[in-house]
Amino acid sequence: MVEKMALNESEVIELLASIFATRDQRLLVGIGDDAAVVAGFSHQILTTDIAVEGVHFKKEWSSAYEIGQRIAAANIADVLSMNGQCDYLLVAASLTGGETLQWLGELAQGIADAAQKVGAIVVGGDISQSPALQFAITAVGHSEKVITRSGAQVGDSIYLSSLTGWSAAGLHLLSNSIGADSDGAQEALQQYKAPTLDLNIDFSRANAMADVSDSVLVQINQIAKASGVAVHLSLIEIEKSEEFARLNNLAQEFGVEIWQWILAGGEDHALIATGHDLPGIKIGEVVEGEGVEIFDHEGRKKVAPVSWSHFS
Amino acid sequence: MVEKMALNESEVIELLASIFATRDQRLLVGIGDDAAVVAGFSHQILTTDIAVEGVHFKKEWSSAYEIGQRIAAANIADVLSMNGQCDYLLVAASLTGGETLQWLGELAQGIADAAQKVGAIVVGGDISQSPALQFAITAVGHSEKVITRSGAQVGDSIYLSSLTGWSAAGLHLLSNSIGADSDGAQEALQQYKAPTLDLNIDFSRANAMADVSDSVLVQINQIAKASGVAVHLSLIEIEKSEEFARLNNLAQEFGVEIWQWILAGGEDHALIATGHDLPGIKIGEVVEGEGVEIFDHEGRKKVAPVSWSHFS
Repeated sequence: MVEKMALNESEVIELLASIFATRDQRLLVGIGDDAAVVAGFSHQILTTDIAVEGVHFKKEWSSAYEIGQRIAAANIADVLSMNGQCDYLLVAASLTGGETLQWLGELAQGIADAAQKVGAIVVGGDISQSPALQFAITAVGHSEKVITRSGAQVGDSIYLSSLTGWSAAGLHLLSNSIGADSDGAQEALQQYKAPTLDLNIDFSRANAMADVSDSVLVQINQIAKASGVAVHLSLIEIEKSEEFARLNNLAQEFGVEIWQWILAGGEDHALIATGHDLPGIKIGEVVEGEGVEIFDHEGRKKVAPVSWSHFS
Repeated sequence: MVEKMALNESEVIELLASIFATRDQRLLVGIGDDAAVVAGFSHQILTTDIAVEGVHFKKEWSSAYEIGQRIAAANIADVLSMNGQCDYLLVAASLTGGETLQWLGELAQGIADAAQKVGAIVVGGDISQSPALQFAITAVGHSEKVITRSGAQVGDSIYLSSLTGWSAAGLHLLSNSIGADSDGAQEALQQYKAPTLDLNIDFSRANAMADVSDSVLVQINQIAKASGVAVHLSLIEIEKSEEFARLNNLAQEFGVEIWQWILAGGEDHALIATGHDLPGIKIGEVVEGEGVEIFDHEGRKKVAPVSWSHFS
């Protein structure tokens, strides 16, 4: 079957090729052949992530540039969470044909800039007509010391690279059409629209690590299961973090339970790691057993809200 | 935003993980972590391809297993056409939620079997809810001697790994609801539904090579442009090929111009190569100049049908 598109396909390809043009020495054969050829590494990290309009992003909520940054960051975060360096991105773009060249160009620039921040380049992709606007980005990286989810050891502490919940707070503002009047609200919106990756944190000595794309509870539960250990999370430890007060102000302003944002909100792309004396925000301990338990200020077990119950 | 799916997501993941399970030594970290970790190579080949329901496949025309084979073959072919060995596949599956577990399992098996035929393994992927059923597969391979589209030299002959047109013939039968009464018709249908890759042909001495996924004319034109040469195609050479008579019988039976199928039909995943004394079907010569010219039986220039005119 022939692919039809209201957009002129060769114009789109030309535009994307110009935005993703690079003289990077790692790229041996670039856009325009059957496949890209790149310099490889002995331990290659491979990951792919789908972003669908209406499910993962909305054109009404984010600019094309922000969407590009956001979908690239989601993939890059998966490489970083393996203690990897992200080298290459491939972008499979399913277009409805209703997009303008300008919108596509801004989205591509968002992807290119997010890649550039971590030293990665876009080396190829595909475009197709589709009833639904969506992108499947593949990230390729490498690491000489891969850190998986399964290395957590009893006695490890648990750390976040930065406070989670900002993206969920941004989603709350957007979903409820609340304007961003305060600095905190603006930060929340920004983190939702184009999440910041915590590039300056050094988790290379961690025993286990994951990307907090789903939520702290989902991801720490995965680490616990994969490592055959249990986890105790301490709310009082999290409250000590510098950013907590600002996020808490927002939560109180909008009558939202802050732990819902911090522990059960998703799409922050912070890193969660276990180990000894790591940087970041300490949020708990790895213990013997299985499952995840949460302890409140007085050291009592906190019952997870109903929406969390399937994680415990 | 949370991904919703009528299908039970964890059941789908469990099913796919069991179908793609492997003890292959190249896979260092498999499905279940943030990313896959695999053994890499110095010259890594990367390619991604989108397949959308209604654009690239139809559930009414192909079984789930055939669709799986077909979309995997399309990606694998891009690696083979760089003179590469395909090692790894990543599958990004956008599901409407209307698919059954059984249908998905059969599709995954089709992908796994197509991969296995070339020594590749499925190492990861993503699933998401989407208004449109589609798949973006990424293929990762390697080569110690990459062959691109830009190496064609004046004096080279041009070769096909097998006769093209069968897939277009199959599409013609399906589009016109013609039953597969003859052996030829059945082969055409089969080639459309699950194209065979020409794995036994050795084009490793070629100067230029491409996958004939679009059409012979599109691809040879790309080779000519990338190499800065012109191409003469000879219909009489193509007619000498063993399979020509069988495909020609089909074309005559249905009143179709056979060159439309062979030269302008797509999705065959044969390989087209230029060089000296290569195996396969010789179809023309590389000469000085630019563009593609077609010569008929008497050595006269053949005017390309209107539908081809934008390639010349």
